[in-house]
Amino acid sequence: MEVENRYVAVRHHVEGSPSVDDFEVKAETVRWTPESGEVLVRNMYVSIDPYQLNRMKRQSASHHSVDVIVPGERIASYGVGEVVASACEEYKEGDVVAGMLAWEEHSVFRPETSMLMSKVDASSGFPLSYQLGALGTSGMTAYGGFYEVCKPKVGETVFVSAASGSVGSLVGQFAKLAGCRVVGCAGTQAKVDLLKDKLGFDDAFNYREEPDLKAALKRHFPDGIDIYFENVGGEMLEAALANMNTYGRVAVCGVIAEYTDPGRRAVPDLLEVIYKRITLRGFFAWDFITKFHEFTAIIGGWIEEGKVHVIEDVSDRLESVPSAFVALYRGQNVGKKLVKLA
Amino acid sequence: MEVENRYVAVRHHVEGSPSVDDFEVKAETVRWTPESGEVLVRNMYVSIDPYQLNRMKRQSASHHSVDVIVPGERIASYGVGEVVASACEEYKEGDVVAGMLAWEEHSVFRPETSMLMSKVDASSGFPLSYQLGALGTSGMTAYGGFYEVCKPKVGETVFVSAASGSVGSLVGQFAKLAGCRVVGCAGTQAKVDLLKDKLGFDDAFNYREEPDLKAALKRHFPDGIDIYFENVGGEMLEAALANMNTYGRVAVCGVIAEYTDPGRRAVPDLLEVIYKRITLRGFFAWDFITKFHEFTAIIGGWIEEGKVHVIEDVSDRLESVPSAFVALYRGQNVGKKLVKLA
Repeated sequence: MEVENRYVAVRHHVEGSPSVDDFEVKAETVRWTPESGEVLVRNMYVSIDPYQLNRMKRQSASHHSVDVIVPGERIASYGVGEVVASACEEYKEGDVVAGMLAWEEHSVFRPETSMLMSKVDASSGFPLSYQLGALGTSGMTAYGGFYEVCKPKVGETVFVSAASGSVGSLVGQFAKLAGCRVVGCAGTQAKVDLLKDKLGFDDAFNYREEPDLKAALKRHFPDGIDIYFENVGGEMLEAALANMNTYGRVAVCGVIAEYTDPGRRAVPDLLEVIYKRITLRGFFAWDFITKFHEFTAIIGGWIEEGKVHVIEDVSDRLESVPSAFVALYRGQNVGKKLVKLA
Repeated sequence: MEVENRYVAVRHHVEGSPSVDDFEVKAETVRWTPESGEVLVRNMYVSIDPYQLNRMKRQSASHHSVDVIVPGERIASYGVGEVVASACEEYKEGDVVAGMLAWEEHSVFRPETSMLMSKVDASSGFPLSYQLGALGTSGMTAYGGFYEVCKPKVGETVFVSAASGSVGSLVGQFAKLAGCRVVGCAGTQAKVDLLKDKLGFDDAFNYREEPDLKAALKRHFPDGIDIYFENVGGEMLEAALANMNTYGRVAVCGVIAEYTDPGRRAVPDLLEVIYKRITLRGFFAWDFITKFHEFTAIIGGWIEEGKVHVIEDVSDRLESVPSAFVALYRGQNVGKKLVKLA
């Protein structure tokens, strides 16, 4: 079988803020044969994630653990799709799968135990797109990061930056379910309203309107911050540390402000870290891969019961992948950013 | 009973590098009566510790958890002394005590359960000065920090900064006993020789002779650093993070380079923290107070067996407290700095 496949590639390594001109849509013919051992998937949704920018750089700490993206080549990405041809037992034509696919219309994979790929139970009643956010890597990041890294206790205070984003919006809701007081920050009034009115945050603020982030956090956390779920980096981390309580915990899963500008880094006061005995811990979703099904089952239950709302921001068609990606760094997305291909 | 007491005070808050002119020796008459409930101690040794500088500042994160030092007043410090008069049952004349005394010739305390004060078993055979270092807060910091915070595994690599200091010299020896490969850095060739020749470090280097700390650590840790015991801060932390392995641990107990210059801070690459899933944890000795006797019993055993060497740097008489303290920030001490009063 042959299919025409179109995919998004970078033209060159991307070092600063990305622009749509950094990308191109390319075409190729994909050949699948019954002897190949491979599974051919028609992609329905692909995930748009900030961390991909680090993979596009010539040099980045991300290259320790995630492959560099080679200009001109396919870009691996979490996605959900339908099997259109399969040369192996585990996958049948018509099966829906979620896992590591790519920013392309068709993907081919060869099943391996180490690989992130699971069959989706289509009878679950959830929109398939949820597989990319709350029931996928965003959910795993938020759940693992909050419960395993932050170890919340009832009554503690939680600060979430980039709180209207894919991970932050879930963390804030999980924090409420854990009996914590949670305040989020975001970059527009509409996002702030969303956090307070729909997602149940105790409070929220627009960080762009705060000339002094330390003072803003002092106002919102008069008794200090016990847990900071860090998605931003830079001055936000410094301000959070200055307002943290003794034995505070900082879960560092993203520092989007630093992705586009390596010169813009946090300059933390280590005396705060010592004297308040703060723990900062870096992590990412795949650290919790063995607990993936446990986490998504819990999150799925909460969604069904209406305890967790899923916020999505969906663009259409492969051509919109570059603009959807660029929008992440301009703060233009609300909730999980993804592209619907078919 | 009345005794003449002389004590060291700061003349004013100290903000940058300390100088001997910041201090003065003052005199007072201490009155002790049998009805006071108090214990009068003639101090024999007092501890000289870098963290005291933070207490001398007008503002510091240390003030969250340790009292500010008031100009003109006595300066609480760990010390060892002999009871000369006691108005309570637990302490008798002639007992030797170690705990929170002050930079002064005589101290008076009223026993409280929460206070750091213990009777020293004079029959143990250890020099009394050890109570201030290896068998006191330095030992508790090194043991707790290394075993409880860093959680070493056999075969791991350990980097210790300020390795010839009171805490660092112990951590390096503990790391060898734990089956780790350990490299230390210090600021003179004599200290480097001490680390390698006497304390059994696998290797050591003089950081002042390294124009590129990242490259130096790369050379000494071709397979990366698993554990970094942080005593220094600034560029040293940045360089260590750049060379750390996945799931690396950084125990942050002191950042002496940042104490004298608040503008000189580490600018860590948080992408390293995320992608290598590094944990940084601040702590200090008192976090392990409930395990104090357990820790010091183990360390005492090691010293007796010749497995751990204690390095001390002793100045004489109360007048030398200011110069002994100032020497810490000039890298002039080797091992535990203390002053012998009597």
